[in-house]
Amino acid sequence: MNYQAINFKNKLGLFDEHWSPKVVAEMNDYQFKVVKIQGEFVWHDHADTDETFIVLAGSLRIDFKDGFVNLSEGEMYVVPKGIEHKPYAEHEAKVLLIEPRGVVNTGDEIGGKTAENDVWI
Amino acid sequence: MNYQAINFKNKLGLFDEHWSPKVVAEMNDYQFKVVKIQGEFVWHDHADTDETFIVLAGSLRIDFKDGFVNLSEGEMYVVPKGIEHKPYAEHEAKVLLIEPRGVVNTGDEIGGKTAENDVWI
Repeated sequence: MNYQAINFKNKLGLFDEHWSPKVVAEMNDYQFKVVKIQGEFVWHDHADTDETFIVLAGSLRIDFKDGFVNLSEGEMYVVPKGIEHKPYAEHEAKVLLIEPRGVVNTGDEIGGKTAENDVWI
Repeated sequence: MNYQAINFKNKLGLFDEHWSPKVVAEMNDYQFKVVKIQGEFVWHDHADTDETFIVLAGSLRIDFKDGFVNLSEGEMYVVPKGIEHKPYAEHEAKVLLIEPRGVVNTGDEIGGKTAENDVWI
């Protein structure tokens, strides 16, 4: 058993690229992923699962087809399953994502923003 | 659909008591709970699930039968299912817990520290 805390700043210091989630922990069949985001993502949804965003630094906006939510450091939001959404960050934001193992970041919208989930645990 | 961010500081400002988790969000069948802790909890385990601690402010220690982990703000730890543990905080710490709906904070060790999970969503 590993008695080592997971430090978000340390993990975030290990990479620079945007939209490339790194799995830093698992809880049952869920994964915790740190990610840096900047600019505009693609519209997508996750048909089978909710998706949690916790903002570790900076701020971002999640657009929906009929509105948006602004999120800053110390705030979270759960995007319900099946709801189309598009994250956007004017400046770099650092985010903790929580979702079931195997979720693809772009849902079915496979393309340039689709990333492997590098597993760092 | 609710486009309101969940702000941890705002939620934590709504109560003073220790060891009394407040459910502030749900993701699938999991719950996010903010809790203030100070002093010593009871030894317990959760036979069927891992349990996630994310430190929002302050620091705490989780004791295990053969060791411990120290956690500070911006750090997380996942206690594996079935592992006996006892949280401890010398000074008040503010924590985000993530675990499946219905988990009792003290596991099977029902007693003075057992708390209802007030649902605030």
